[in-house]
Amino acid sequence: MTVNAELVASLRVPPGPVDLTAIKTHVAPGFDGGKEDGKAALYALGPELADLQERLFAEGRSGGNRSVLLVLQGMDTSGKGGTLRSTVGLMDPQGVRITSFKAPTPEELEQDFLWRITRALPEPGYVGVFDRSHYEDVLIARVRSLAPPEELERRYDAINRFEADLVANGTTVVKCMLHISPEEQKKRLLARLDDETKHWKYNPGDVDEREQWPAYREAYEIAIERTNTEAAPWHVVPGDKKWYRNLAIGHLLLDTLHRMALQWPKADFDVVEEKRRLTDEDPLS
Amino acid sequence: MTVNAELVASLRVPPGPVDLTAIKTHVAPGFDGGKEDGKAALYALGPELADLQERLFAEGRSGGNRSVLLVLQGMDTSGKGGTLRSTVGLMDPQGVRITSFKAPTPEELEQDFLWRITRALPEPGYVGVFDRSHYEDVLIARVRSLAPPEELERRYDAINRFEADLVANGTTVVKCMLHISPEEQKKRLLARLDDETKHWKYNPGDVDEREQWPAYREAYEIAIERTNTEAAPWHVVPGDKKWYRNLAIGHLLLDTLHRMALQWPKADFDVVEEKRRLTDEDPLS
Repeated sequence: MTVNAELVASLRVPPGPVDLTAIKTHVAPGFDGGKEDGKAALYALGPELADLQERLFAEGRSGGNRSVLLVLQGMDTSGKGGTLRSTVGLMDPQGVRITSFKAPTPEELEQDFLWRITRALPEPGYVGVFDRSHYEDVLIARVRSLAPPEELERRYDAINRFEADLVANGTTVVKCMLHISPEEQKKRLLARLDDETKHWKYNPGDVDEREQWPAYREAYEIAIERTNTEAAPWHVVPGDKKWYRNLAIGHLLLDTLHRMALQWPKADFDVVEEKRRLTDEDPLS
Repeated sequence: MTVNAELVASLRVPPGPVDLTAIKTHVAPGFDGGKEDGKAALYALGPELADLQERLFAEGRSGGNRSVLLVLQGMDTSGKGGTLRSTVGLMDPQGVRITSFKAPTPEELEQDFLWRITRALPEPGYVGVFDRSHYEDVLIARVRSLAPPEELERRYDAINRFEADLVANGTTVVKCMLHISPEEQKKRLLARLDDETKHWKYNPGDVDEREQWPAYREAYEIAIERTNTEAAPWHVVPGDKKWYRNLAIGHLLLDTLHRMALQWPKADFDVVEEKRRLTDEDPLS
C-alpha cells in the first residue's frame, strides 16, 4: 500500500463555492522532494498500479461490472496528453480505453450532449480515460455561448444524474482539473512555437481561448461547484510542475483502485479435473 | 536507426505454401543473446518507437491519412496479451487503439464478417492493434464449421480485397501469427492452473480448442498462404520465448514506422506573428 493519502486528500475539492485563484498551481502538496524524486516516485507506483488494474480487468472478464472513469479537464497545455503518456501509460494498455473529445460533429450536435459520452464509457474491467469530456458542454459552451442559458443550466443537473447512474452501475468516476497559471500556459505555448517538432500541437485558436482566461476560470468554478457531488467528486491538480501532476494522478488512480478492494476471481471450474485433462488425456503429448 | 533488419526479414513468410511444422517456435532468429539481453534490447527500442509514433500521430492531427494496423493472431496462450503489455505498451497510449475481438455477438453475426472489423479500424495517425481479428472467420470458423465451405472460400478473397483497400487508403497492415508449440501451450495452461492469480485467464474451452491443434495448424497454413499478399504480408513470430516474441514485434513496428519516412508537420500558421500575439498583445501579462 503505497498510496500517499495526504497528497490525495490535498487534491479533493471541498463542497461549496470554488475559488481557483486561491488554489496554487506551482506547488506540490503532500510530496517532499523535487523533480527527480517525483519521477522516481511515479515510476515506483507502476507495479502496484499494474497489479490492481489487472485484478480489475480479471474481475471484468469474470462477470464483474466495475470499472473506472478518469476525466481529465484543463486549459490548453495543462498536460492532459502528458498525463496520458506518463501516468496512464504505466497501466496495461489492454485494459485502458482513452477517448479524446474534440468539437462535436454535426451528427453529435443533433443528439443530447451526453450521447457521445455514453458511447465512450468503459466496459466492465476497464479504466476509461476522457481527454476532455461532457464538461466541455458547460465550459466552452458557456464561454462561447454555444447553448442558451437555460440549456446550460439544465446540463449541470443532467451531468449529476448521469454520473450518479454511472456510479450506481459500478463505475468509479474520478474527475480532475489540471490547474495551471496563465503565465505557465504562455511559457508552454511559446515553447511550442520555438520547437519545430511541436508546431503540430500549436493552434492559433488556442490564443483566442487564452484571451478568455477569466471567463474560463469562472466557468470552471461554476461547473466544479455544481457537479462536485459525493458520488463523483472533483479534484484540482496543481499542474505547473509536470512531474507533480503525473505523480498526483498516479496516486489518485492507485487510491481509487485500492478502495475497490479488488480480489482475484475464483475459478469457476474444477482445477484438479482440468489438470487431469491436460496431463492424462492430452492427445498432443 | 536501431531496426534489426535480419531479425525482421526472418519473420516474413515467403510466398507459396506454408508449413508451420517447419518453422521453429523456440528459436530467436536474428538475435544473439539471452533473455536479459532481449529484455534490455526491447526497452532500448522504446524512445525511437515513441518518437516515430508521435510523428505519425502529429501527421494524423495535421491532415495526414496514414495509420498502422497490427494484427495479432495465435493459439490460446501464444502471448497476444503479453505483446500488448510489453511491446505495444512502449508507445504513447494516446495514439494506440486496441480492439480485442471475441466471439461475434448476434448483432455482429447478422452482418458481413468484416462489418465489426471496419468499425474498429485505426483513424489517421493511430496505431491500431487487433487482438484476434477477421482471421478468426477463416480459422475457428473453418475448424468448427461455423460457415459453409463456399462462404469460407469467399472470405479469403474478401480479406485480400479489404486489406488492399486499407493499404491503398493509407493504413500499413502488419500481420503476425504468434507461433508456439503444443508443448509450450500445455506448460502455459498448467502454469495458469497452478497460480490462483491466473485462474481468470483459464477457460476449459481452451482445452477443447487445443484438441483441434492439427486442424488449427492447417487452417492457419491455408489462411496465411491465401492472404500473404504483397500489400499485407504475413509474419510468423517464434513465440515459445516470450522475450523474443516481444522484441521481434518491437522491431517489426519500428521497421514499419521507419519505412513510412515520417516527418514533423510544417506549421500552417505564421510562427513569428503568433509569438508576437503571445508577447506583445497578451492581455494576461
